[in-house]
Amino acid sequence: MEDVYKDALAIHKKYKGKIKIEPVFPIKNKHDLSLIYTPGVAQASRQILKNKQDSFNLTWRGRTIAVISDGSAVLGLGNIGPEAALPVMEGKALLLKQFAGVDAVPIVINTQNPSEVIQFVKNIAPSFAGINLEDIAAPTCFQIEEALQDIGIPVFHDDQHGTAIVVAAALKNAAKVVGKPYGSLRVVILGAGAAGLATARMLLGLNCSADRCEIIPGHSAVKDVIVVDKNGALYSGRENQNIYKQAVSGISNKQKVRGSLSEVIKGADAVIGLSGPNLINKGMVKSMAKKAIVFAMANPIPEIMPDDARKAGAKIVASGRSDFPNQINNSLAFPGIFLAVTKGRLTKITQEMKDTASKTLANLVTKPSPSNIIPDMFYPRLAEHIAQAILKVKTNT
Amino acid sequence: MEDVYKDALAIHKKYKGKIKIEPVFPIKNKHDLSLIYTPGVAQASRQILKNKQDSFNLTWRGRTIAVISDGSAVLGLGNIGPEAALPVMEGKALLLKQFAGVDAVPIVINTQNPSEVIQFVKNIAPSFAGINLEDIAAPTCFQIEEALQDIGIPVFHDDQHGTAIVVAAALKNAAKVVGKPYGSLRVVILGAGAAGLATARMLLGLNCSADRCEIIPGHSAVKDVIVVDKNGALYSGRENQNIYKQAVSGISNKQKVRGSLSEVIKGADAVIGLSGPNLINKGMVKSMAKKAIVFAMANPIPEIMPDDARKAGAKIVASGRSDFPNQINNSLAFPGIFLAVTKGRLTKITQEMKDTASKTLANLVTKPSPSNIIPDMFYPRLAEHIAQAILKVKTNT
Repeated sequence: MEDVYKDALAIHKKYKGKIKIEPVFPIKNKHDLSLIYTPGVAQASRQILKNKQDSFNLTWRGRTIAVISDGSAVLGLGNIGPEAALPVMEGKALLLKQFAGVDAVPIVINTQNPSEVIQFVKNIAPSFAGINLEDIAAPTCFQIEEALQDIGIPVFHDDQHGTAIVVAAALKNAAKVVGKPYGSLRVVILGAGAAGLATARMLLGLNCSADRCEIIPGHSAVKDVIVVDKNGALYSGRENQNIYKQAVSGISNKQKVRGSLSEVIKGADAVIGLSGPNLINKGMVKSMAKKAIVFAMANPIPEIMPDDARKAGAKIVASGRSDFPNQINNSLAFPGIFLAVTKGRLTKITQEMKDTASKTLANLVTKPSPSNIIPDMFYPRLAEHIAQAILKVKTNT
Repeated sequence: MEDVYKDALAIHKKYKGKIKIEPVFPIKNKHDLSLIYTPGVAQASRQILKNKQDSFNLTWRGRTIAVISDGSAVLGLGNIGPEAALPVMEGKALLLKQFAGVDAVPIVINTQNPSEVIQFVKNIAPSFAGINLEDIAAPTCFQIEEALQDIGIPVFHDDQHGTAIVVAAALKNAAKVVGKPYGSLRVVILGAGAAGLATARMLLGLNCSADRCEIIPGHSAVKDVIVVDKNGALYSGRENQNIYKQAVSGISNKQKVRGSLSEVIKGADAVIGLSGPNLINKGMVKSMAKKAIVFAMANPIPEIMPDDARKAGAKIVASGRSDFPNQINNSLAFPGIFLAVTKGRLTKITQEMKDTASKTLANLVTKPSPSNIIPDMFYPRLAEHIAQAILKVKTNT
C-alpha cells in the first residue's frame, strides 16, 4: 500500500473521523440551562413561528449546510454505497469549516432512487442554509438537482458545477501560458458523467435544463468541445446517448467527429479527463497539438500520471490530487460558494454566480506558469474572494 | 415578557444558535490534505467497503447521533412545524455534547406523514450511530418508532421513554419521602400522548407493541394508574380511544373509574401532568390523598405552578423546568442513554435497559427529601453512571 494510504487510514482510525460538535454557548449553571433549554428556548421557537426566516438567525441553520451523498459515484471508486462514502463527505465538511468557516454536516443516505433522494432533500431542507450534493452518479444527478431548484435554499451538485468552475478557471490560465486564445481551443473531455457534461456546458457557455441547452449570449466560450464516453465521441443523433448527453452533443462537436478517444484526441489543444484511472496513454498525448494541456482529474488514480503526461510532451499538466502541482479540485470552489450562500442567505446559485466564481479563481493567479495555473487550497482568504465576488453578483441582480 | 424569555432570545440572537462544527484533525499543509482528503481518504472508503461496521471506527459516525423532529408536538407549544422546532433540537444536541460528550446533529423535517418520517429515518441511518426522535405527536409517534426498531441502529423516542424513565425514578424516591410503598401508589396521569402513555406503560411494567400490552413478570410496578385525556379517564372499551390508549386502558384503571380529572384525582396519591398549561387547579390538589405528590411537567408552562401546588397541600412538587427545584426532565436520561449507544455500539435499547436507567437515576439520590427526589443535570458524571448501568445489562444479555 502506498504510504499516503497507510497514513490516511491510520489517521482516520486514531481520530475516529475528522469533525466534531462543539458548544458555542457552554452551559455553566442552571440559569444558563434555563436560557438555552426549557423554558427559555420556547421564546426562540415562538419567534420563528412568527417568522420562519428567523430560523436562520436564532439557530445554527444560518451558518450550516449539509453535504449529502447517496454513495453512487464516489471519487474514482464508483458506486460504493452510503457507509463507504461517509469518510469523503466528512472530509468535505472539514474543508468547508476550515477553509470557509462554514459549519457542515456529512449525510449519506440509504437510497439511490432519484425520487426518494429528491424527497429526502426536500424533507431535510428546513434544517440547513444550503445543500451540497456530492458524488451522485449521472444521469440521475441531473434529474435530482433540477427537481430541487425551488425549495427555498440552494442545492448545488458539486461534482457538476464545482468541477466545471475550477476546470474553466484552470483552462483559461493554461491557455495564457501556452499562448493560445481561450476562445480558439479545441478541447476533448473524457467522461460524460456529472463532471464531464457540466464542464462541457460551462466551457461552451450553455444554460441547460434536462434535455435542452441554450447558448448564453456574451459568455466567453471555447471554440469546440468534443465529449467522449466509453462508446466514443458524442455527436448529435448518436445512439446510446441519454437526454443529457444528447442535449450537449447538439452544440458540442461541431464537425460531428466520430471515433474513440485515441482518434478524436489527435490535434486537440487540451484533454480534460473526468472519467477513470489510466484511460489516457502516452501515445494519445503525443498525438495532440503542440503545447498540449492535459488535465487528468480522476481520483484517486488519474487518467494518466502527471510525469507520464509530461514525458509524452504535454506543456501543462494538472490532476485532482493534493500531492501533485496544479491541483484542479472542486474543493477550490465549493467552500467559497457556500460561504456566499450562508453570508448572503442565497436561495439559488445562478449560472452568473458560477461564471463569476470561475473568473475570480482564474484571476487570483497573477502570473500563470506551467506549474501554477490555479491557486492552491492555502491561497490566503481564497473562499472569501470567491464569496465576495458572488455576493456582488447577488447585489447587482 | 418574562426575563428568562427575553434573555433567552437575546442569547439565541447573539450566538446564532448553540452548537458548531470543529475539526478534530486540523489541516495544516498539503500533506495533511492528502491524508484526510483525496487521495488518502479513498483508503478509509475502501476499508468500509470491505466492512460496513468500520464506518463507526473511521468516521465520526461511531460517536455521533441525530436528534430528529417533525415539529408536530414541541414543548407545550404544539404543532409548530420544523423551523420553529429547530432551537429545541439544537438545545438537545448541545446537552448531549456537554453532558455526555456525544456529538449530535439537530435535524428537523418537512413532513408529518408517518410513512415519510419512517422512510426518512431509514434513509439517514447510515450517517449516525443512533437516532433520538423528539417532539413527534401521538399517536403517530408509536407507529413511527415501532417501524424503526430493526434498522441496525437504535431509534429512541425520547418524549416517550426518556420521560417515562425519569418520572419513574422520581416517583420511586417521592414514595420513599412520603412513606408510602411505591407498589401501593394510586397514580393519575394527565395526558394520553407520547409521554403519558409511555409513562403509564413504564409504571405498570408493561411491554407494548401498538395495540397489545403485556405485563413484564417481576417488574416492580405501581398498584393502579388512571390515565386521563380530554375526554376523561381511559377505561377498557371507552369510545374515542385510539389503539394505543385502548391497549393501556386494558391494564390500567382497574376499577374502570369514569369521569373527568377533577373526579378521578380525588384520593389519588400522585398526579403526573404530561399535558398542557394550567390544567390542574388548587381544588384538585386539595382533593388528593394526604402527602400528595404533584408532578406538573408541561413545558414551558406547567399544569399548575409549583407554589400553587404546595399551597394546596402537596407534599412533593416537581416540574419540567430548569428554574424550579425537582426538575423532572427527560434531559436527565437521554444523554446517558446515547452515551451507552455510542460506547457500546448498541443496535437496540431494550425495556430492561430503560428500567436500569430509571433505577440508576433513582439510586443516585441517597437521601431523598421533598426538594430533592431526583439528581439535577449537574450531578457529577450523571450520563456516565447511566451509560455504565446500561452497558452492564448489554454484557449480561
